[in-house]
Amino acid sequence: MSQTRFRIALVAPGTPLERETADALQALVAARWPDGAVEAFVHPQCFLSHGHFAGDDSARTAAFLEAANDPAFDAVWFARGGYGACRLAEAVLQGLGPAAATKAYLGYSDAGTLLAALYSRGFSKVAHGPMAQDLRREGGEAAANRALSWLVEGDRAALEPSVAAGTKAAAFNITILSQLIGTPWEPDLSGHVLMLEEVSEYMYRIDRSLCHITSTPAMRKVAGLRLGRCSDIPENDRPFVLNEEEVAREWCARSGIPWLGRADIGHDADNRVVPFGAG
Amino acid sequence: MSQTRFRIALVAPGTPLERETADALQALVAARWPDGAVEAFVHPQCFLSHGHFAGDDSARTAAFLEAANDPAFDAVWFARGGYGACRLAEAVLQGLGPAAATKAYLGYSDAGTLLAALYSRGFSKVAHGPMAQDLRREGGEAAANRALSWLVEGDRAALEPSVAAGTKAAAFNITILSQLIGTPWEPDLSGHVLMLEEVSEYMYRIDRSLCHITSTPAMRKVAGLRLGRCSDIPENDRPFVLNEEEVAREWCARSGIPWLGRADIGHDADNRVVPFGAG
Repeated sequence: MSQTRFRIALVAPGTPLERETADALQALVAARWPDGAVEAFVHPQCFLSHGHFAGDDSARTAAFLEAANDPAFDAVWFARGGYGACRLAEAVLQGLGPAAATKAYLGYSDAGTLLAALYSRGFSKVAHGPMAQDLRREGGEAAANRALSWLVEGDRAALEPSVAAGTKAAAFNITILSQLIGTPWEPDLSGHVLMLEEVSEYMYRIDRSLCHITSTPAMRKVAGLRLGRCSDIPENDRPFVLNEEEVAREWCARSGIPWLGRADIGHDADNRVVPFGAG
Repeated sequence: MSQTRFRIALVAPGTPLERETADALQALVAARWPDGAVEAFVHPQCFLSHGHFAGDDSARTAAFLEAANDPAFDAVWFARGGYGACRLAEAVLQGLGPAAATKAYLGYSDAGTLLAALYSRGFSKVAHGPMAQDLRREGGEAAANRALSWLVEGDRAALEPSVAAGTKAAAFNITILSQLIGTPWEPDLSGHVLMLEEVSEYMYRIDRSLCHITSTPAMRKVAGLRLGRCSDIPENDRPFVLNEEEVAREWCARSGIPWLGRADIGHDADNRVVPFGAG
């Protein structure tokens, strides 16, 4: 049980974690809590390899459910994104036990599909924020420490600056949110400030996904939109002319969704934590 | 009026058509119908350029509605795909007049968004099939002639071979259909044989979009799925292992959607015509 130690389980629903990244994370945790008050358990599934994925769907689902359903863990931290979480959503939702609902979940990018699924089932400690893999970025220790500060201490300094107590929020990768729409794990974001970020997508794809998202009656019920960073946008053969903020502002104007400005989230070491629901 | 001539209007809701392609199309029509029984009117909007698009959203919307609402045209033929149709969907649906509902509409790829929108409003002569731009492909004359045979003569030899009278069908680009889900222009495909094709998408994206589509309760009501060609799949840094048919079969098995085999559609000159609804 977790009376004495705060135990975090790391799982990888998408692509595998390198052992050296796991080692670096555990060294960081040991240095920050030399008394052993916090333990980062890296589920062995994180190191599996099955084609594109960190183990086959059964292995990834089983690892996630072991971590989520074991009352000995206080938090489930997504180790890495990539691609693969959506393949687990249906089985994960069928396998959640009573201990799963009370612990914290943190990740972003591909992992957003499972964050959405958990939030759609009323889980109250689900957040968009850094993952263990971010340790590999320049400045990545700050990202990992920010995630740990939120997971272990609920430190509000880790939060995206606009997050306010009593105001509902949620954050997603743009493509991932687009492909949640209409599924049984699409979360109800009515009245939420929606923060969106993207990486490595052409401007026309960012535009198309924002068209999709803001055209749906469900998403038109959000309280407003904030745009995080859209990084590594490839050059198209046909210049798009508009940039990501111009496009986001346009879709807000067209859809009647209030444009609230930028958000301090993205695929980078500065990515801040956005708890889902009332922050 | 169209008592004597069959008049086809070409519009470009996405990217511009080159003049030489338009000239080649008109030469082909003139050679096939030397008596002038068929006219291909290339709307000047097709040649506009506004950033990524064939004219701004207003110009593209206006051209589409002029073609759709003018009773002098018997058919609206999408000149080219690219990207841009989704930007017009809301305004197009608001601007459709009484003459629009009775004519034929043909295109694919990006144009699928407007085909879906029209079909969602009960239009009965909407079809997935070759566009004028296909003339630029090797063997493209056959594709253009196939389109014309369906538009002008309703030639059943142009149809995808599995299309049968009395059996409902529809066809889409995988990414385009994924991003229709949840919008007010998502068509009701209950009981339809759904044919899907893709081009230039990584396998993990094909998988993710098929996961999305087959996970939605609405799409689980289709009569079955046929997979068209998925061409020019880029190599990923992490091999996906599964190919497009294995992935489609897997999502069918998981979702309970009957797998019906392959479809003779795709981003190529062999692309056959799939009328929406009962063929």
